[in-house]
Amino acid sequence: MDMVPEEFQTSLKRAIDSKTKPVGSLGRIETLAAQLAMIQNSLKPVAERCQLTIFAADHGMARAGVSAYPQDVTRQMVANFLAGGAAANVFSKTLGVEVQVVDCGVAGDPIETAALRSCRIAAGTANAIERPAMNAHQCASALANGRQIGLEGRHHAACFGEMGIGNTSSASLIAAKILGEPVDELVGRGTGLEADGVRRKRTLLESAASRTPAQLTPVEALTEYGGFEIATMAGAMTGAAESGKIVIVDGFIATAAALCARKIFPGCERNFVYAHRSAEAGHKRLLDALNATPLLDLDMRLGEGTGALLAWPLVQAAAAMLRDMASFDSAGVSGPA
Amino acid sequence: MDMVPEEFQTSLKRAIDSKTKPVGSLGRIETLAAQLAMIQNSLKPVAERCQLTIFAADHGMARAGVSAYPQDVTRQMVANFLAGGAAANVFSKTLGVEVQVVDCGVAGDPIETAALRSCRIAAGTANAIERPAMNAHQCASALANGRQIGLEGRHHAACFGEMGIGNTSSASLIAAKILGEPVDELVGRGTGLEADGVRRKRTLLESAASRTPAQLTPVEALTEYGGFEIATMAGAMTGAAESGKIVIVDGFIATAAALCARKIFPGCERNFVYAHRSAEAGHKRLLDALNATPLLDLDMRLGEGTGALLAWPLVQAAAAMLRDMASFDSAGVSGPA
Repeated sequence: MDMVPEEFQTSLKRAIDSKTKPVGSLGRIETLAAQLAMIQNSLKPVAERCQLTIFAADHGMARAGVSAYPQDVTRQMVANFLAGGAAANVFSKTLGVEVQVVDCGVAGDPIETAALRSCRIAAGTANAIERPAMNAHQCASALANGRQIGLEGRHHAACFGEMGIGNTSSASLIAAKILGEPVDELVGRGTGLEADGVRRKRTLLESAASRTPAQLTPVEALTEYGGFEIATMAGAMTGAAESGKIVIVDGFIATAAALCARKIFPGCERNFVYAHRSAEAGHKRLLDALNATPLLDLDMRLGEGTGALLAWPLVQAAAAMLRDMASFDSAGVSGPA
Repeated sequence: MDMVPEEFQTSLKRAIDSKTKPVGSLGRIETLAAQLAMIQNSLKPVAERCQLTIFAADHGMARAGVSAYPQDVTRQMVANFLAGGAAANVFSKTLGVEVQVVDCGVAGDPIETAALRSCRIAAGTANAIERPAMNAHQCASALANGRQIGLEGRHHAACFGEMGIGNTSSASLIAAKILGEPVDELVGRGTGLEADGVRRKRTLLESAASRTPAQLTPVEALTEYGGFEIATMAGAMTGAAESGKIVIVDGFIATAAALCARKIFPGCERNFVYAHRSAEAGHKRLLDALNATPLLDLDMRLGEGTGALLAWPLVQAAAAMLRDMASFDSAGVSGPA
């Protein structure tokens, strides 16, 4: 297509409004369809193939007690993803989505299996409560690995998920520092801490936050507070957008990665579809900061890309609406009297 | 399975909580999975096949000016459904859902085509503003036709949609009379009336409501205010539940049918999954009366079963979660520390 943006907008509005339905009656499916058309610069957007990439890594902070679960669970869940037993796997299978698992830095020895993609930076980050989670070179490598992953493939949409015990803590710190807000406002129950655990987590994260200035750039925030998986995901979001893919943004941690991605590669947010409102406390604040209204609100807080996956059929439906629905003219249906 | 309910509940909770995810972290997908297990009386619920049935009929009231669209549109949209051009068709195709279209009483001569199932009661209802939309015999026939349709087929889930210019008016009147509330509270924009049109519609519906006592039984309400398609749908909901199917309830009009169904065949609501919160004004009140919280809120108000269709992948995901996800034990994943 070779239309100037304004003409395209006009044609797009006309195309949506001419479909055999009262104007506006498909609500958010219509605005989503318009976004897909703009991403693909086509009045016939295609959303047939989707891939989920799950980024896994460990966090030094986990050993300080920020999570309800032991650090080993990251590695065990990687095995579960590879065996097809996790929620992300069964959702993907049901929805016809291909799954790729990436080791960005799981603690311990490298997991030797062809089924797992290795983009290991190190065997977990340092304890970010006390010192930077990674160095600048490691952060740059993770972002570059991610961008490469995002650029690859001919799927129309990319869901990105994560696994890393302790990573809601990383995400809270990253988001707080990029937004220049107290981390306290962004702390939640993570995998399911009780009140005592949340208090402990809050104290630890306030201590971690006090190490650095109130506001940081995304690269600084990722370097200080980590998550090899979060940095790799942020890179993947930029690469996927750069290659014209629809990026379906999952919950709290993925939204923190999206916050980084849109500052690192301005304009990439045009390709972002926010999937769901997580039950994790900080997500609302993060979504408000991004002026984003997710498609789903199902009280989920699992991660792994599960929320993104459940939004994929809505993306498919929106594309199909614009591409395949008859118009009043083509179907011989009368308009309003 | 042959467990007593209480044992089953205990096993069900244990099965969901043993899956490799923090307890409760899949939110409404977990409660949905529990409902599916109870519907199918199985800890391995199946949701693989889904059918959409669209019930079409005309309303005498349409000629009195309750809708933004001319009555002919019902018939034209039936042709559009059969040609595959409507929103319900493209959503169904994307989601792998089979579509059946039923003529419950479209105005004019019968539409002669094998692709359309005929359960015609008459060529449209009478004008319910002035007189009963149908007689008792017609209402009983529509309910019986619907029950038969609901009983048929080996699909796991049934979506029911409707098409009938004027049928938000019917639904408002039916709901008002069953709930014993003023119809005024349940009137909305329908297919897209402007303020003037809504005022006119409100006046007409108040006049229609004044013909009968403040509270009616579902059968009386259907007889007085019609909708051959609404009565047939209500019957289909009872038949589908009777045969153990998951009934995915669409928007405003389908919820009015559900309100009838659960009074006609008590217990059938156990099989009802409320799909979405319609933008049609009366829907909120109707959902509140049913104590129902739909899965989706996408500002849609089209009908045709489009909202029900978009909830189908959530139903599939919920069943797959319970049926196929690994447990902490089976996957060798550690629980909380």
